[in-house]
Amino acid sequence: MRDHTVPVDAPGRSRGLGVGEFHLDGGFWGGLQAANTAATLRHCLEWMERLGWIANFDRVASGDTGGERPGWQFSDSEIYKLMEALAWEYGRTGATWAEETLTALTERVAAAQDADGYLNTCYGHAGQADRYSDLSSGHELYCTGHLLQAAVARLRTVGEDKLVEIARQAADEVCRTFGADGRDGICGHPEIEVGLAELGRALREPRYTEQARRFIERRGRGTLKPVTLLDAAYFQDDLPVREADAWRGHAVRALYLAAGAVDVAVDTGDTDLLNAVERQWGRSVERRTYLTGGMGSRHQDEGFGEDWELPPDRAYCETCAGIASNMVSWRLYLATGAVEYADLMERTFYNVIAASPAEDGKSFFYANPLHQRSAAAEVRPDEVNPRAEGGVRAPWFDVSCCPTNLARTLASWQAYAASVEGEQVSLLQYASGDLRIAIGDGEELALRVTTEYPHEGTIRIEVLEAPERPVTLRLRVPHWADGARLATDTGAQAVGPGWASPQDPLRQGAVIVLRLPVEPRFTWPDERIDAVRGCVAVERGPLVLCAESIDLPDAAVIETLRVDPSIPPRAEREGAVVQATAAAAASTPGALPYGPNPRRFDAAATLELGLIPYHRWAQRGSTAMRVFLPTV
Amino acid sequence: MRDHTVPVDAPGRSRGLGVGEFHLDGGFWGGLQAANTAATLRHCLEWMERLGWIANFDRVASGDTGGERPGWQFSDSEIYKLMEALAWEYGRTGATWAEETLTALTERVAAAQDADGYLNTCYGHAGQADRYSDLSSGHELYCTGHLLQAAVARLRTVGEDKLVEIARQAADEVCRTFGADGRDGICGHPEIEVGLAELGRALREPRYTEQARRFIERRGRGTLKPVTLLDAAYFQDDLPVREADAWRGHAVRALYLAAGAVDVAVDTGDTDLLNAVERQWGRSVERRTYLTGGMGSRHQDEGFGEDWELPPDRAYCETCAGIASNMVSWRLYLATGAVEYADLMERTFYNVIAASPAEDGKSFFYANPLHQRSAAAEVRPDEVNPRAEGGVRAPWFDVSCCPTNLARTLASWQAYAASVEGEQVSLLQYASGDLRIAIGDGEELALRVTTEYPHEGTIRIEVLEAPERPVTLRLRVPHWADGARLATDTGAQAVGPGWASPQDPLRQGAVIVLRLPVEPRFTWPDERIDAVRGCVAVERGPLVLCAESIDLPDAAVIETLRVDPSIPPRAEREGAVVQATAAAAASTPGALPYGPNPRRFDAAATLELGLIPYHRWAQRGSTAMRVFLPTV
Repeated sequence: MRDHTVPVDAPGRSRGLGVGEFHLDGGFWGGLQAANTAATLRHCLEWMERLGWIANFDRVASGDTGGERPGWQFSDSEIYKLMEALAWEYGRTGATWAEETLTALTERVAAAQDADGYLNTCYGHAGQADRYSDLSSGHELYCTGHLLQAAVARLRTVGEDKLVEIARQAADEVCRTFGADGRDGICGHPEIEVGLAELGRALREPRYTEQARRFIERRGRGTLKPVTLLDAAYFQDDLPVREADAWRGHAVRALYLAAGAVDVAVDTGDTDLLNAVERQWGRSVERRTYLTGGMGSRHQDEGFGEDWELPPDRAYCETCAGIASNMVSWRLYLATGAVEYADLMERTFYNVIAASPAEDGKSFFYANPLHQRSAAAEVRPDEVNPRAEGGVRAPWFDVSCCPTNLARTLASWQAYAASVEGEQVSLLQYASGDLRIAIGDGEELALRVTTEYPHEGTIRIEVLEAPERPVTLRLRVPHWADGARLATDTGAQAVGPGWASPQDPLRQGAVIVLRLPVEPRFTWPDERIDAVRGCVAVERGPLVLCAESIDLPDAAVIETLRVDPSIPPRAEREGAVVQATAAAAASTPGALPYGPNPRRFDAAATLELGLIPYHRWAQRGSTAMRVFLPTV
Repeated sequence: MRDHTVPVDAPGRSRGLGVGEFHLDGGFWGGLQAANTAATLRHCLEWMERLGWIANFDRVASGDTGGERPGWQFSDSEIYKLMEALAWEYGRTGATWAEETLTALTERVAAAQDADGYLNTCYGHAGQADRYSDLSSGHELYCTGHLLQAAVARLRTVGEDKLVEIARQAADEVCRTFGADGRDGICGHPEIEVGLAELGRALREPRYTEQARRFIERRGRGTLKPVTLLDAAYFQDDLPVREADAWRGHAVRALYLAAGAVDVAVDTGDTDLLNAVERQWGRSVERRTYLTGGMGSRHQDEGFGEDWELPPDRAYCETCAGIASNMVSWRLYLATGAVEYADLMERTFYNVIAASPAEDGKSFFYANPLHQRSAAAEVRPDEVNPRAEGGVRAPWFDVSCCPTNLARTLASWQAYAASVEGEQVSLLQYASGDLRIAIGDGEELALRVTTEYPHEGTIRIEVLEAPERPVTLRLRVPHWADGARLATDTGAQAVGPGWASPQDPLRQGAVIVLRLPVEPRFTWPDERIDAVRGCVAVERGPLVLCAESIDLPDAAVIETLRVDPSIPPRAEREGAVVQATAAAAASTPGALPYGPNPRRFDAAATLELGLIPYHRWAQRGSTAMRVFLPTV
């Protein structure tokens, strides 16, 4: 095993952490990562073996194609995402099981690769449709993109190996087929762009970066054949990437494409393209993003809605879209150093990504709505769930992109926790553990972070080792942290949202304490978000809170709750308590719910309404839930 | 041609009108019907010829099946709905074109019928999938149901003919295949139930009624094979019809099923089944129905949402669901005589059904949202529209159920305008024209109705001829008509919502005047409808009004409009004017639209906000629109 701490080799302003540079010591993210290690990785493997998705590779290898093929046309990508997760897992921990499993999967995948590098179990073999015969829906290049990302995880942890060689051959085949002299096509689902750009960067192979650039420039020219009920915007094929002002269409598609565009912009010095993605981020965050950081307002196309179309009940907020949003924000942060990108990542980490897995790591939310009207039926633990609906975590889905996407994200969470800009280290996400960060050639900065964040606001940072050269530290102060304080050996001071920096270079033994105000607070939506007019939400630190009907004396009362915003929320355990009223609402079957006078509930009783962190909802059983609470 | 006024032969309390019993004299419905006559019928015929949907019958007849087949698997139903429309059209007007076109279509359909009565152009022939091999999605029985309804239109206007004979053979094949000794199956899309029940009633053939009953009793037992992302509730196969409390799943499916259930309940004296549908109507009207009468809150499955899930922007409110809702309400009205069913029909007629067609009768809304956030792109008049989205009327759709459904509904609108209960006539829908209604054996009541309704509230009814026997009249006073007055030769009196009846039997020369208050009024939603909290709507008589951005000095202002509900709306032309404010809203790209303080717009300017009838929206060009207006 090579050094775990091979840094991300990005030519932007910053680099992120190698997954081995930060050892988590329990806490919020340590706990989630432990469940991923203990359960989710094996869970994904077992489901994909059971359903025959992995055996699809064996059938191609043995020439036994053309019969019934289990899984959707994009099921290969789930194996690649699991392989990426295993690569990070081994790179981070050195766990033998992860390495052996990855090696075994690599052998099975390798055996299915055609001589010219083409690799897909659904197309191009006896009894199958031709290669690239359905670019709109075939997902071949999408699958390849995930293969390349898995290889990059390997390159960043152990270096060249068989998986990297498979990826190189696959990437070469893509470059030949779709290069300057090849076919003028793009894939209906972006992902090849970010995969090629990452691989090009990791292998210092400009042909891959160039091919990624080519796919990005080709997009938005209406070349994809339409699919029933879905228009060109669904594929982001309606407008060239550099001309669009906001994200639209299928959210995961839009965000994977944007991630690839940032990589290409950075690696080719294309400021115009970078600015375009920054503009799209700005507009989409302002008008098309949920309080949780979730993106995607529509079920029909798993897509963005229009500006201000943010219904809490039918919020889609696909787990994968949260992951993809963080892929974009992370790249924009690395490219620009602007703190707001890391702010949105924190919001999305705690309130979308952390919300998806059950505590045991064996069932998942696909959609993450902010309002569940009625308690959903339980899901059987042995059944594939056809519904990408909220309300109940399911062990596996018919389209099961989220579990493996979570697995790779949780296995590499450390990569996003800090960045290094020359002689500056930026702490972005707070979690207890030990950091040992390479600074320049051979020198290291070692820090110990101790915190109960997000439930408590104190973050203690001790400098265990400092390099010879002067190294500075900057700490992210979240945008909501009004009243934060920074204490060092030389005194304490108030610090505003943005960056807080001890003035002197770090020296061994120094202790820095950042205190973030995590008292619960009311948060009000913009008046233009029609769906939550007259409502308020409660947040606590980076956590969005919610009310669950199972905490109410009468579950039906969740329909008539009214919060009194004149009384500040009070902290309780990891949630909060607000003053509210609830009433028995009249039922009048046959009478339309519209009348000549404003309708108010009668006989409201006051209530101490307990709220819990949103990411924990439906962990205690099926329940109705709401984040936005109407006010009295 | 036989007498046009063959009455609806229902064994319930009431009968509706034969389409020939009421001659419209211009006005609101006369105008819509004229556009249907002049344009929509031919438009549908031309599109279905152009797309090859009608030629599918010719290909079956000539044995040329198995190649590419244009249209969805349910395209036959569109031809049958057009044939039903033509049957009503000829029955109502005696127009030669309608009769010749129907005869020609009947010949082509007849030629495609198999020897045993099976009739479908997508299944069961050389190179096609087997008959009834995909009950979940195949739609064969659905298509047959529409064939039977077309035959019923023929029976109710001209009597037995070739179309009726085709239908009889098709119905017999269904009874043999799915009867007591046949296959225990149901169709994924209900419609065969109402078709068989109607045909059984019209032909006095209890076998058909019994088969309809059988399909209804079989439903809700989970026998339909699931379809990706759609659960059993989508098909109403989750709960037996008599056990359900509310409509759920695909709205058109739910409502066609309910219509068939009422027919079966009435014809078999099944009070329990009738009560079940009444209960479902009551609960669904209370919690799952839009102010327009529209039903269906979700795009993904074209379905009902949960209780109180009524988003105005993503309201689906499919035109066909409005038509189907009226099919159910009409049957419940005939069965019970309760005025609220006719009330809901009026609401749906004016605000869903009338909203769909463009003034020229050549383009249509498929979905009927109550809020359009931005002006939609125009649709090309020669292109099939893939999007069942609101915002722009399209000439034809990929799934094009609505245009032919509108055609048959508008061609037979008179049938729903009045009912006869023995010696009582009930006027339900108000429109200028002459009624000549058969009362018992050979006697007739002739009335002339003169009104500018819905734009004015005065309805003048003159008795042109009265039969020997004493006949009474009752007039529907809509639920919103607080302050209505009824004037007869003997004086005037206040009448409340419900029924208003002149006390004496009708005599020739009598004049009755009903005055309904159609001043614009504010209407408030129930507090449990989250999506329109803090908003008010404006209605005028039976018309829901709306604001369009093209009437605003700056279209963007539609996002910040605030109505002052302390100032009553003022009538203007056919709409209203309300007092409002509008403001320039700040744009802050990159800032989440959530913050620590309630957000209010600054520097609001006052505005006289003009509102137009909702059914006319987007008739003057592409526009943003809203029905529910936030209050100051």
